[in-house]
Amino acid sequence: MRAVDIIIKKRDKGELTREEIRFFVNGITTGRIPDYQTAAWAMAVLLNGMTPRETTDLTLAIAQSGEVLDMSDVVKIAVDKHSTGGVGDKTSLVVLPAVAACGLPVGKMSGRGLGFSGGTLDKLESIPGYRVDLSTEEFEKQLKEIGLVLCGQSKDLAPADGKLYALRDVTGTVQSIPLIASSVMSKKIAGGAHAVVLDVKVGNGAFMENLKDAHELADLMVKIGQLAGRKVVALISDMNQPLGFAVGNALEVREAIDTLRGNGPADFREHCLHVAAHMLVLGEKTDSLEEARTLAEKSIADGSALEKFRQLIIAQGGDVSYVDDPDKLPKASLIKVVNAPRSGYLEQVRARAVGEASVALGAGRAKKGDPLDYAVGFVIHHKVGDKIQEGEPLFTVHANDEKKMEEAIASVSAAHTFNDFPVPPLPLFYA
Amino acid sequence: MRAVDIIIKKRDKGELTREEIRFFVNGITTGRIPDYQTAAWAMAVLLNGMTPRETTDLTLAIAQSGEVLDMSDVVKIAVDKHSTGGVGDKTSLVVLPAVAACGLPVGKMSGRGLGFSGGTLDKLESIPGYRVDLSTEEFEKQLKEIGLVLCGQSKDLAPADGKLYALRDVTGTVQSIPLIASSVMSKKIAGGAHAVVLDVKVGNGAFMENLKDAHELADLMVKIGQLAGRKVVALISDMNQPLGFAVGNALEVREAIDTLRGNGPADFREHCLHVAAHMLVLGEKTDSLEEARTLAEKSIADGSALEKFRQLIIAQGGDVSYVDDPDKLPKASLIKVVNAPRSGYLEQVRARAVGEASVALGAGRAKKGDPLDYAVGFVIHHKVGDKIQEGEPLFTVHANDEKKMEEAIASVSAAHTFNDFPVPPLPLFYA
Repeated sequence: MRAVDIIIKKRDKGELTREEIRFFVNGITTGRIPDYQTAAWAMAVLLNGMTPRETTDLTLAIAQSGEVLDMSDVVKIAVDKHSTGGVGDKTSLVVLPAVAACGLPVGKMSGRGLGFSGGTLDKLESIPGYRVDLSTEEFEKQLKEIGLVLCGQSKDLAPADGKLYALRDVTGTVQSIPLIASSVMSKKIAGGAHAVVLDVKVGNGAFMENLKDAHELADLMVKIGQLAGRKVVALISDMNQPLGFAVGNALEVREAIDTLRGNGPADFREHCLHVAAHMLVLGEKTDSLEEARTLAEKSIADGSALEKFRQLIIAQGGDVSYVDDPDKLPKASLIKVVNAPRSGYLEQVRARAVGEASVALGAGRAKKGDPLDYAVGFVIHHKVGDKIQEGEPLFTVHANDEKKMEEAIASVSAAHTFNDFPVPPLPLFYA
Repeated sequence: MRAVDIIIKKRDKGELTREEIRFFVNGITTGRIPDYQTAAWAMAVLLNGMTPRETTDLTLAIAQSGEVLDMSDVVKIAVDKHSTGGVGDKTSLVVLPAVAACGLPVGKMSGRGLGFSGGTLDKLESIPGYRVDLSTEEFEKQLKEIGLVLCGQSKDLAPADGKLYALRDVTGTVQSIPLIASSVMSKKIAGGAHAVVLDVKVGNGAFMENLKDAHELADLMVKIGQLAGRKVVALISDMNQPLGFAVGNALEVREAIDTLRGNGPADFREHCLHVAAHMLVLGEKTDSLEEARTLAEKSIADGSALEKFRQLIIAQGGDVSYVDDPDKLPKASLIKVVNAPRSGYLEQVRARAVGEASVALGAGRAKKGDPLDYAVGFVIHHKVGDKIQEGEPLFTVHANDEKKMEEAIASVSAAHTFNDFPVPPLPLFYA
């Protein structure tokens, strides 16, 4: 078998066999196939597509390119969740403690922020001491002891994915639905997941900007699950406006703690309960979504979800006093409330613009390895559809630099648009 | 400007600007753009195409990636020819001496064999001493003195083409009409050509297997010529059966010498006169193709073309006694005549199969740098449409290895197919 023939087959719209896909992924992993061949192949895949069968074989080949975790001793049905990324998406920080508090152990490997979207690891690191790099032994031990792990992706899992992703990023081959789906699913499978709740975000603040692509990605990941013998539920949720109010690492941790305490923004709480309910059903804690939702609500109401979050922070070396007293979290030196420039119905709060402004303030990275400013970001005070009076608070900016603050105010002000006539609120979920 | 944005633009079917193309080619030349980005870009170009304007900008950028020759002092209108490659195509060996003998100086840089198709340089090197590597000074001096040069491509000309071609070869991106056209035309322009006769081969023994692709390539190269201010004439000629009778380096040199002496196969002679006539018209030696053809015929009839060929061999260090006595050319130890297995009309002599069998005998290279056996090859005795009697000579094989000879006989026998009913001869030219 020769790499160039596999490239040519895909170039000519052929369907690759399992053996050809395994040969190629193996070549990527070992470095025997040079980057330039992988790049040409990825472009051919992006432009000519892959069938669900090919994508499943690709997913499994990537998953098996390194260690594959098996947590069957610790948890009967390992349920994972994945969000395709958005602005203000701190869902894992609430959902996982709630689910774990309901008796379903969850060990999740998360990522860092990418472009305008935040990353769970970055958010957690605003709590001093929190360690995201765990060994497989630590992962397993903690999952057994407290039923909850939230750490970084191990380098030993799905190494082909890391190499392929780095190359896709610089060759214009990120936006391929089969490549996105196989990247997500391969990591979940390598992490030992038996079942996965996928939260596919759609909107201007998501990587999928339209419903058609979101549905295609969701359907494909569900099909991969079926073909690979994993239970997969895909939700399609809105990302045209930020989720919740807070955008920025420490601000989002604070909002997550508020939510675990039974407060927090209504949309974010609702989103978390919905995802948690699906995880509990997949984990066979109950048969019905209604019952599962009641269990998740109860874990928040009785404080057990918050207690599980505290245990998580302690187990991974974080200073739990920051959870008990969120005022200790990093604070920006400049905090300014920006008022509504006019009265009207809020028509848009463009999530992408808010996410990009947050990165510009220092909450995200312009390039890999850039340091983060955990304190900065925004609290958006309204949701699309709200009726607003001129002069009432529109959003609050948290910054550590006067000039950046002014730029951020201009961007996020422009991200808010108004209408004289009532605007319907955005749905939380599309499917 | 970033390479990845240019890749994405082409991936999304955008039309690249001249500046973007120059930036990319410059990055290839300097090595600042890594191979994996070039590979992804080449695949996007192959799958999404390029407009004639983009292809012309690409051609000029590649031509200007190194030294650009200017022979205006030596020759008023520098006319070049290029064949896209085929089996038994020794046209340059006859056309160039004929044209030079008619008073139009020609300096041509040729290539080596590629895959199943032979290369002019390899053929010439079957004459001991012939040097193909000339400096620019030697090139210019010889062009001035005898009006004829036939050497290898200088490394200083169009270096981006060499790099791009090597990468395309291993990334499945050879078969792109804009990339093929820009590769051919950039070398001609860097070589200082004011006018070019292109011989686009079509058929199973050519890189373009169907007329549609051949027309597309020919049209595109003519358009590049127009846009780049060069006169270009494109001929489309048949390559379903070998051109002439001889296939193999020394055998083809011998056939070329025969033709320069006024003998040689009718189809090959006709092909050469046609190409030579177009060159003479482009070089403004005469206005009409008929007159030009008469001039070329005359140069063969009066021996001046052969004399020019002798001067070429002497000027480039070759032993001219091999021209005067072609029996001195390398001879195979095993020469076997294979007879027709049946009577009938010759339906096919599949050029590609003959070319591949010739490579297998040692006349071509399985991989770069392989040594050549100049003596081996075939003489095919018939043309498609010929009426043949069982037992009469079909072809002669020249080999230096018994086992290889047997395999070659099997392949080339199979390349000949017969029909009980008359078969029309193949045309020499389609357009």
